[in-house]
Amino acid sequence: MQSRRAFLAGSVFAPAVLLGKTSYSWAEIEKMIARGDVKGKLSKADLPTPALVLDLDAFEHNVNKMVGFVKGKGRAIRPHGKTHKCPEIARRLVAAGAVGACAAKLSEAEVFAQAGIRGLLITTGVVGPYKIERAVRLAKLAPDTIFCVDNIKNANDLNEAARAAKIKLNIAVDLWVSNRTGIMPGEPAVALVEAMQGLSNLKFTTLQAYAGGASHVTGFEARKKVSQEVMAKAVETRRMLERKGIACSHLTGGSTGTYNIDADIDGITELQPGSFMFMDVDYNRIGGADGNAVYGDFKNALTVFTTVVSKPNDDLAIVDGGLKAFSTDKPFPPKHKTDEGINYAFGGDEHGKITFARGANTLSVGDKAEFIIPHCDPSVNLYDKMFCVRGENVEAIWKVAARGMSQ
Amino acid sequence: MQSRRAFLAGSVFAPAVLLGKTSYSWAEIEKMIARGDVKGKLSKADLPTPALVLDLDAFEHNVNKMVGFVKGKGRAIRPHGKTHKCPEIARRLVAAGAVGACAAKLSEAEVFAQAGIRGLLITTGVVGPYKIERAVRLAKLAPDTIFCVDNIKNANDLNEAARAAKIKLNIAVDLWVSNRTGIMPGEPAVALVEAMQGLSNLKFTTLQAYAGGASHVTGFEARKKVSQEVMAKAVETRRMLERKGIACSHLTGGSTGTYNIDADIDGITELQPGSFMFMDVDYNRIGGADGNAVYGDFKNALTVFTTVVSKPNDDLAIVDGGLKAFSTDKPFPPKHKTDEGINYAFGGDEHGKITFARGANTLSVGDKAEFIIPHCDPSVNLYDKMFCVRGENVEAIWKVAARGMSQ
Repeated sequence: MQSRRAFLAGSVFAPAVLLGKTSYSWAEIEKMIARGDVKGKLSKADLPTPALVLDLDAFEHNVNKMVGFVKGKGRAIRPHGKTHKCPEIARRLVAAGAVGACAAKLSEAEVFAQAGIRGLLITTGVVGPYKIERAVRLAKLAPDTIFCVDNIKNANDLNEAARAAKIKLNIAVDLWVSNRTGIMPGEPAVALVEAMQGLSNLKFTTLQAYAGGASHVTGFEARKKVSQEVMAKAVETRRMLERKGIACSHLTGGSTGTYNIDADIDGITELQPGSFMFMDVDYNRIGGADGNAVYGDFKNALTVFTTVVSKPNDDLAIVDGGLKAFSTDKPFPPKHKTDEGINYAFGGDEHGKITFARGANTLSVGDKAEFIIPHCDPSVNLYDKMFCVRGENVEAIWKVAARGMSQ
Repeated sequence: MQSRRAFLAGSVFAPAVLLGKTSYSWAEIEKMIARGDVKGKLSKADLPTPALVLDLDAFEHNVNKMVGFVKGKGRAIRPHGKTHKCPEIARRLVAAGAVGACAAKLSEAEVFAQAGIRGLLITTGVVGPYKIERAVRLAKLAPDTIFCVDNIKNANDLNEAARAAKIKLNIAVDLWVSNRTGIMPGEPAVALVEAMQGLSNLKFTTLQAYAGGASHVTGFEARKKVSQEVMAKAVETRRMLERKGIACSHLTGGSTGTYNIDADIDGITELQPGSFMFMDVDYNRIGGADGNAVYGDFKNALTVFTTVVSKPNDDLAIVDGGLKAFSTDKPFPPKHKTDEGINYAFGGDEHGKITFARGANTLSVGDKAEFIIPHCDPSVNLYDKMFCVRGENVEAIWKVAARGMSQ
């Protein structure tokens, strides 16, 4: 540390006034962050705010619990990469036992593939000549990638491109089981798969059934009923195919809200949850299988760390994280990580307004405040990196390399 | 074009099936986009969706109208860069007559300064030793940068750092006039400015009064009343300072919603609107000075261009832009650019659900749909670049270089 202080004292960027307050100058911290050389050096208080912070103990607990549970049920897990957009997390999930990673879009899958992730499943159809050209290029790099299809035109386009490139594309047929994309399960889906049997450069193996309408049903029993009902349509579609002698080795679906429901449904071979690794206020509200109103199966691992930058009056503190620092699609705000008496309300693009319940700790200019995010996926998509901590120590910086990759 | 087609025919990335459908392969388009070499070559239909699209004719109309109006009233304009986060736009605004650019945060200002933009005003206080170190570094690069202060502790910290660096920092005192940050106008603000008189490395010149509570009041007369009331507090604060012999050459504030109100208030020297250049659904709803319910002073220049990727049934089309492609902080959805019978509803992180009024044009898989964004600032913050078009032709690609710079 002495040598760093000596270096600092000679830095043109280090006003003398800062010495003694902190061990490092910003000029040094900036270089550490750029290099990712932070372990044992930086604490959370050193981070430029607003900062996306991942608690590694909670994250590892969540990963081990989910992967262990799903594998214990004899199912595969291919966690959804649209939640994390982070190749390092995809790698850790595979190391923990995942068969690969889902990607919401082609451009997200491209980032994962370039980072060496395999076992990719792109959960939205790849439509139009340019994206199909990219799909072929991706399949050459990562041949086990699975592409979703929900209409015969798109299947024909993919087949022609694959034929021209002399490759085969792995295909999942995407089923509309409640709410997102896909062809209707049952006869329409079976007819599509049958029509695809003549397309020799497509290899059908999988049905995908994501039940967006089930994942956030409040109350475990109600959620179980919805998920069992909608996923039964997918299971029946798989059985219809098999009765026709068409192999369908995989049925993938499920979410953080339904993992402990869908893993008990016969015929579902693979789950693709995402939010479990981070958790958010939204999922905390759906209720657990234990009857608890707070869904506590997984720990809140992801937060946004902010600083109070203004104190217009004694009852109001303004933090530096607003509409650009948190997801805003839910009808509830970020939640203070530890103090229920500290209330956040959005205060425009750049700020949050903090008020204090009677008896709560108040906050002054320069103080930090850490908030659990309302909805993890769109929040992560606002940041280029996440700062990974154990306790107060920053242990690593992980790039959100697929941030913005919605194409 | 022939030579390009010949090149394309030989490209490993160009399946023969694509020839004839489009002039270019994706491999070629990808390179053009990377180089920014698109003028006269690409059309909107070639863009990877979801894409942020700027209509240059509408943008230039908006810039010329706003700058011309404000300068015609004898006021300066320093448009807010938190709206565009794009150095090329900041340059064009200065070329049109702006005195510089506002930046919401220090990191945003750093990007503008590094791109050569001068006349910066950072509209949020710069708090804590690391950010103050960065402020000093920024002031060395761009000495005319103005920093906002709203408490004496922060003023002392800035002064000490400036003294150690042997520079002077230009200071605005930020007033809480309705809703964001700042010290209370009147006596508290005057006392802060007086206390700063002894801080020899700070140069106070400016009061800032951003009335977030005025900008979106529906109905011009109601909005005028609110803005005049709250801005009067800022004007009176300026007069109180002058009566004490303290020079305060600038009073900056105002928004797209109040530009034609605040520019008529004596004592306001400078406006800092942002949204006017793009416009959004939110501002369209506040009503115009002409009594029209639609605020039509400025044209909708900014859209998100999407593709239909799924058609679960005849009445529902799914586009590839969802919670990660549009701002979500307003209680209304994106609005189709041209067809009022095409209705968008958010369909999760990655998708939008399109339904059709009776008689409206329907959409099929592969069709494009272009939407006006609900709220421009947080939408722009989701994209690394904007595609600038005239009509259907892509003319340029501008980097949103300060995207994500909320620190």
